[in-house]
Amino acid sequence: MSINLIRYSDGWGVVCGTDILPLPSTYETTAEVLTAGVKAAREVLANPKAKGIPLADVTPLNPLPGARVHCQGANYRSHMIESGMDPNRAFNMLFTKSTASMCGADDDIVRPPHVKLLDYEVELGIVVGKPITEPVTVTPQNLAEYVGAFVVANDVSARDIQLPQGQWYKGKSYRTFCPVGPHLCVPENAEEVARWTELRLTLSVNGTKRQDALADDMVFKPAATLTEFSQLENFEIGDLILTGTPGGVALQPPKAVAQKVAGLLPEDTKWQLFVKGQAKSNAYLKPGDRVITSIRTDDGAVDLGTQHNTVR
Amino acid sequence: MSINLIRYSDGWGVVCGTDILPLPSTYETTAEVLTAGVKAAREVLANPKAKGIPLADVTPLNPLPGARVHCQGANYRSHMIESGMDPNRAFNMLFTKSTASMCGADDDIVRPPHVKLLDYEVELGIVVGKPITEPVTVTPQNLAEYVGAFVVANDVSARDIQLPQGQWYKGKSYRTFCPVGPHLCVPENAEEVARWTELRLTLSVNGTKRQDALADDMVFKPAATLTEFSQLENFEIGDLILTGTPGGVALQPPKAVAQKVAGLLPEDTKWQLFVKGQAKSNAYLKPGDRVITSIRTDDGAVDLGTQHNTVR
Repeated sequence: MSINLIRYSDGWGVVCGTDILPLPSTYETTAEVLTAGVKAAREVLANPKAKGIPLADVTPLNPLPGARVHCQGANYRSHMIESGMDPNRAFNMLFTKSTASMCGADDDIVRPPHVKLLDYEVELGIVVGKPITEPVTVTPQNLAEYVGAFVVANDVSARDIQLPQGQWYKGKSYRTFCPVGPHLCVPENAEEVARWTELRLTLSVNGTKRQDALADDMVFKPAATLTEFSQLENFEIGDLILTGTPGGVALQPPKAVAQKVAGLLPEDTKWQLFVKGQAKSNAYLKPGDRVITSIRTDDGAVDLGTQHNTVR
Repeated sequence: MSINLIRYSDGWGVVCGTDILPLPSTYETTAEVLTAGVKAAREVLANPKAKGIPLADVTPLNPLPGARVHCQGANYRSHMIESGMDPNRAFNMLFTKSTASMCGADDDIVRPPHVKLLDYEVELGIVVGKPITEPVTVTPQNLAEYVGAFVVANDVSARDIQLPQGQWYKGKSYRTFCPVGPHLCVPENAEEVARWTELRLTLSVNGTKRQDALADDMVFKPAATLTEFSQLENFEIGDLILTGTPGGVALQPPKAVAQKVAGLLPEDTKWQLFVKGQAKSNAYLKPGDRVITSIRTDDGAVDLGTQHNTVR
């Protein structure tokens, strides 16, 4: 069964029921966590010595400090359709978020003063488990070699920066725009890695469910995505790939026809109208909102944990 | 006067006339190069002991291995106008290139088999000289604290990937799409940093000059850009910021009116027409083309060196 590690103020612990059991060592890198840390966790679980700490008493920290964050855009048909994109698009849209956008799973999400349209996106995060230094071919058969762990991520997005400015990096990279964790969920074997298709992504705002979909609905799946990323970039163990979000986000842009007409307007007028129109929606996040985000298989066997964030 | 360091197969050297003088030590990080390396270079220049090596006998390596590459898009009015963008745009367009896209200043630029529209972009690269871990305010007055060095960079771009796919990361990140160097040009003092405005960027293809402009023509200048980036990301000494390219690239998209009409077509039809139209141009790079790229002040006092690349 998968091992769920949590990084917290005193170091690392492993989830055991409603407690975490502290691990005896500290680890400098994610590579060490995924080897020595997992080994220590198995020993601690088999023969618990220290007293457990209730999960409720622990504040989870970002389990991947320093990771590079690579992203897929619009990778679920449901989200492509609601965003006015062509769901038959033939390419995998790739971009990056900043490392500094990452924060702990229960940290506050801070809306910068100039941002009006703050949106959420639950995403399955794949933690690279094997260095990539040249183009490689990843298939569903060898995928498990490259997957070190799974994490929950929320790809928080300032729509009024992201969309008018065209390149998505800025609108998705403000500090606290990427809660990660709580679990670094390390699959036990290739069969468990293959269960990524059964992971259910859910996100609610103030108790109302907004997103609920299976990871299997992805258009470009992890093996193909890792293959394409390897043409472009080297990866270290612990780098993070966010695989896109399903439908249900706050962004609901104008219908395709309206978009085409708007395309005839000057750029700044078009985007002023867009922001004005979207600002009427109650769906965007505002200070005080509570966001609950989780990813797990319906049988609970693979459980990436739950994020609890307050917007401020 | 600025110190020009070159990384090559045997380590680091400092440029002295038409030779380089080897430095006695190796350095693990750019931070060490910018401190201990610069100190050693000053000593070697003041009292040369080892025999110089002719620059022509040395193959320069990427002076910033492992750096993160952050970019400004369309940051010269001349390039914005030729690209069909609004030159009065009120925002600084930010995105990233992959670390693995970097290569040595004289390395071949490899066109991937599926790429048809290969373009060039000479850019002034600013090497971060002071760690940034929180939002900071950089002004022309304190800019020199944050600038560790200047480098020449060529932001090679596959236009038929970059533009149809919307997010620019992929089309600009293939391996060898970012020759960097040859010099890590370390300004002596704040006055020399301030001379960035006088740096002239030039690029020629097969002996014909294509780009020729002063860095002072930038729309969003380095101090403002570093300030905005610090809202988004942490920077280590040695991270690289590419500051945009002036006019003269191969890309010459259809006029604004034609673009608006094309906006009424289905997305894939529009981009097929775009690629077909651009493919008629002789301006794009093809195998065998020789690209010469350099940045220096007209008086030669600040000289980032010259790149010589063959396309294959």
